[in-house]
Amino acid sequence: MRRYTLTLTGIFLAAVAVASADETHHYTLTDSSANTNVEIFRLDSRTMPFDSSAPWSVEKKTLRGGRQEGVELVTIDNGYLRIAIIPTRGMNVYEVTHDDTRLGWDSPTKEIVHPNFIDLESRGGLGWLDGFNEWMVRCGLDFAGHPGTDVLVDDNGVETEMDLTLHGRIGHIPASKVEVSVDSKPPHRITVRGWVQERSFNGPSLELATEISTLPGSHELRIADTVTNRASTPREFQVIYHTNFGSSILEKGARVYTAVERVTPMNDKAAEGLAHYTQYDRPTSGYVEEVFLVEPFAGQSGNCLAVLSNKAGTLGASIAWQKDELPYLSIWKNTAAIEDGYVTGIEPGTGFPFNRRVERNYGRVPKLAAGESRNFTVDFALLGDPSSVKAAKKRVKRIQGGRETTVIETPPATD
Amino acid sequence: MRRYTLTLTGIFLAAVAVASADETHHYTLTDSSANTNVEIFRLDSRTMPFDSSAPWSVEKKTLRGGRQEGVELVTIDNGYLRIAIIPTRGMNVYEVTHDDTRLGWDSPTKEIVHPNFIDLESRGGLGWLDGFNEWMVRCGLDFAGHPGTDVLVDDNGVETEMDLTLHGRIGHIPASKVEVSVDSKPPHRITVRGWVQERSFNGPSLELATEISTLPGSHELRIADTVTNRASTPREFQVIYHTNFGSSILEKGARVYTAVERVTPMNDKAAEGLAHYTQYDRPTSGYVEEVFLVEPFAGQSGNCLAVLSNKAGTLGASIAWQKDELPYLSIWKNTAAIEDGYVTGIEPGTGFPFNRRVERNYGRVPKLAAGESRNFTVDFALLGDPSSVKAAKKRVKRIQGGRETTVIETPPATD
Amino acid sequence: MRRYTLTLTGIFLAAVAVASADETHHYTLTDSSANTNVEIFRLDSRTMPFDSSAPWSVEKKTLRGGRQEGVELVTIDNGYLRIAIIPTRGMNVYEVTHDDTRLGWDSPTKEIVHPNFIDLESRGGLGWLDGFNEWMVRCGLDFAGHPGTDVLVDDNGVETEMDLTLHGRIGHIPASKVEVSVDSKPPHRITVRGWVQERSFNGPSLELATEISTLPGSHELRIADTVTNRASTPREFQVIYHTNFGSSILEKGARVYTAVERVTPMNDKAAEGLAHYTQYDRPTSGYVEEVFLVEPFAGQSGNCLAVLSNKAGTLGASIAWQKDELPYLSIWKNTAAIEDGYVTGIEPGTGFPFNRRVERNYGRVPKLAAGESRNFTVDFALLGDPSSVKAAKKRVKRIQGGRETTVIETPPATD
Repeated sequence: MRRYTLTLTGIFLAAVAVASADETHHYTLTDSSANTNVEIFRLDSRTMPFDSSAPWSVEKKTLRGGRQEGVELVTIDNGYLRIAIIPTRGMNVYEVTHDDTRLGWDSPTKEIVHPNFIDLESRGGLGWLDGFNEWMVRCGLDFAGHPGTDVLVDDNGVETEMDLTLHGRIGHIPASKVEVSVDSKPPHRITVRGWVQERSFNGPSLELATEISTLPGSHELRIADTVTNRASTPREFQVIYHTNFGSSILEKGARVYTAVERVTPMNDKAAEGLAHYTQYDRPTSGYVEEVFLVEPFAGQSGNCLAVLSNKAGTLGASIAWQKDELPYLSIWKNTAAIEDGYVTGIEPGTGFPFNRRVERNYGRVPKLAAGESRNFTVDFALLGDPSSVKAAKKRVKRIQGGRETTVIETPPATD
Repeated sequence: MRRYTLTLTGIFLAAVAVASADETHHYTLTDSSANTNVEIFRLDSRTMPFDSSAPWSVEKKTLRGGRQEGVELVTIDNGYLRIAIIPTRGMNVYEVTHDDTRLGWDSPTKEIVHPNFIDLESRGGLGWLDGFNEWMVRCGLDFAGHPGTDVLVDDNGVETEMDLTLHGRIGHIPASKVEVSVDSKPPHRITVRGWVQERSFNGPSLELATEISTLPGSHELRIADTVTNRASTPREFQVIYHTNFGSSILEKGARVYTAVERVTPMNDKAAEGLAHYTQYDRPTSGYVEEVFLVEPFAGQSGNCLAVLSNKAGTLGASIAWQKDELPYLSIWKNTAAIEDGYVTGIEPGTGFPFNRRVERNYGRVPKLAAGESRNFTVDFALLGDPSSVKAAKKRVKRIQGGRETTVIETPPATD
Repeated sequence: MRRYTLTLTGIFLAAVAVASADETHHYTLTDSSANTNVEIFRLDSRTMPFDSSAPWSVEKKTLRGGRQEGVELVTIDNGYLRIAIIPTRGMNVYEVTHDDTRLGWDSPTKEIVHPNFIDLESRGGLGWLDGFNEWMVRCGLDFAGHPGTDVLVDDNGVETEMDLTLHGRIGHIPASKVEVSVDSKPPHRITVRGWVQERSFNGPSLELATEISTLPGSHELRIADTVTNRASTPREFQVIYHTNFGSSILEKGARVYTAVERVTPMNDKAAEGLAHYTQYDRPTSGYVEEVFLVEPFAGQSGNCLAVLSNKAGTLGASIAWQKDELPYLSIWKNTAAIEDGYVTGIEPGTGFPFNRRVERNYGRVPKLAAGESRNFTVDFALLGDPSSVKAAKKRVKRIQGGRETTVIETPPATD
């Protein structure tokens, strides 16, 4: 293994790395412990000491202007997909594109907003929405879900009340460390690693270590996360992979496919739409969001799969994960007007997006022992043609395996 | 028209533009959609391909140190007035100066504070005051006025409660786009344009487009704003042009002149001062602010005018606007000690500075349909000699035209 | 006196000053009023026009990466001690080190966090803890102590309610002005001065001017602060020197020594630990903090002294102050697990860390008249060998002078 540390501080850098073969190539873009943060970086397959099945590159730049001033963006171009990662926003993924096709959506809030412009407490704990426009944003880690008061009871029976804000803080903490690595051995996996610390004195000591990776020329990417409790005592945590699709895929007649053991509407509004929960309508001004709570069936290896397809079945995306890691799936339908954010969220998680107080009552808030880690691997694919959409839908059907779906007609109690 | 785009990112720039005649000259200083933000810029009349009646320049710099670190400032010097515009604070105007004469005031809060150092929610929603020291700051757009709880009722009768913070958010959002343009045709209007987005998912989608302009050698400047609702549904909005004067003009014996149809004290304290509401006292330690709510008379073309004059009538300022655009005028008297902020606000607006809940009850919260825009043009002049002060006062008298003023002795109900 | 002003804005600077003898050497690192903020600075004894008893230097750098992005750090190396000062965080002191020995502690929150990443209002007013990891952090100035609602009654009997956040704001305001000076006369005192403004419209107008200084080769440093009320009316203020020690000194068997007139446990938990309040235990997972409220005895010159010593008495630190300046001493014991922050705070202050409402009831909230200043001088020493630890303990004993300590068994009323 060969490790490059770019110790240049706050200086423009165009890295043109040349390395010998048979090694993994590491580049440190950010490391607060070494006071390092490279502003500009570029790595290109043409400068590597091995051949690649497709031309690829990894680039870092810093955004300028408006509320994006100072936001760092690392883009992997694997020759087919361009994956835009935001270290400044907790290693969220802004979008994944291939030519004109895009995994992403058009939120009414523009720019990739720097966390410094966000006040999570504003609008009664809804400040998170002021910067919400990414394809994949993690909710968590100390808490995820809806704002509201949670009550913690410690071992001595002492109650602490705390107002939680929507979907937690991990998406608004900049990564303390960011690395790029490329495997010198075929198939030359390209990985961007980030470490994000959600830690406070007398608060959580949760660490997210993420690997976002892909192969040259691939239609797929993988997000492999490790969440670690760095405290000396057990600590609850939550994580939801809030993955959001507008155009290119979403349209009237688009559908979501997944193997469902049980589905429940999150509230009364969703209950009204329950019959059509897998189908999407056209952009509709004044549409009020609906959330469906899915307990998925897994395949024989514990694998879960959700597929979003356009009406014609010519374009889609798939999300695959392990049920023991992420036992719950939320489907968020928000087929509002284009200008208000026409979008659906397909969101595997450790729980559903109720307030943590509610989630705890239902036993959906996992705990990490002191020093314990938990892994979450989510695989995403862009399904760019009818045959791959069809194949993905077939895999969903195979997982369902003819098993019946229980449909719960009424929302769960939340008191 | 000729358009220059400076695509240099985060780099110092001294623009010395040379262009052919008969064109409007455009320079993009900031454009987040193009990832552009020029740190240093200078445009000088001497380098332009046309002659000017007065030497002028437009400069941009970035402030350093304390809470002003990173704040951008664009200054138009028209040869007579220097107009300091703050893109980082929603295109507010810090001050307008001519030699030692100044439209502005000395707030106890120093520096031009970066929004990142402001928490609007702090001090029970009064955080806005932590950075309040500008000559002209817009209050709005989703809400303006006093902090407190507002209740919104949607079309389905669903109530949402929300804690509003003082005077809203538009003054703490950096402009996403800033342009400078100079008209190649006489009289060579110099314009700084800015676009500020007050947009959020499931929140407002309000856009401010402002043009702050002046002519070479002029004693006047114009702020011409367009507020647009980018949502698919109607949305309330509010705007108050909170224009503040301390020295040079304010002093014991200074007066404000405006054509008044009706005047009402905002609260009991103001009611006590009602008899003298147009006159100013010396700086007085412990003075508690008084606000007077004026419904102005307009002239035959719908024009309104307010004039502030010093005691001797040798120095003043005027504010002119259209009544159909801004039907209300608030006069804020805060003749506190110099060190506590000796200041008066003369503030045309779509309403008065009560909490939006109160304003709505009185029918003073306008609505924009989906995609609808509303224009606001406010003209300011520095009245630098007795004759111009006198002329401005005469114009006020002409608008009043002998019509009677109704004086309401008691504050309006706010419950 | 010779004064250097570095007017370079946002540019790297390596200052190699050469000056004639018999002068005090001043360097301005930051001055927002002059739009100056030097990013990199170095001053070295070898380049000075006088000889020094020990080699020394003063350096400034700007931190990069994660939540420390943009934080400025000024380090005095006096040849024995390295003192790391954080202008960006109100001139707090991150740590003082000598070789492997360190005055400081390991908080679970890492990096020197930029105030822009902190929301003091979060977690019910505990946001201050999200960046709490310094050796010496000032609590204050408008308020210090625990979060909660305070009620102010003005001269007219009008009540204002305000939610105070933990330990106030001064530690999260960047210095508006920072200077380095070196005395050309022996013993060549090296001083870093900073001015921090806690000022708001209709709020506090409190100014902190601090001098952090040391002598070449010395084991000591001095923090000499002046707090000034810049308003035209009297204003309350509070300040606590929250000085925190983990390793190197803290360990099982470590002790704190100070001359105590009266000691009171802050709450019931502390009451249980009262018998051992001067002794420290090993790191203990799940330990709940204890705070002891000490009214110290002073020596004949009004001097107070607290000494922390390791078990063997081979390493320690001392804090000396004047009782008329800081009449109260809080001892905060938090011998939690290493990973949760094993630390003790030894904290002279104008009061104790109850909410200001409680402190006011006990008469521990001082007031500054308009324009009035109050000085606070605190001297710290690293006691690096048994004899200096022993001597310091002897000085404590001399101050106690055989006088009796009153031990109050029950916490004070807080209602």
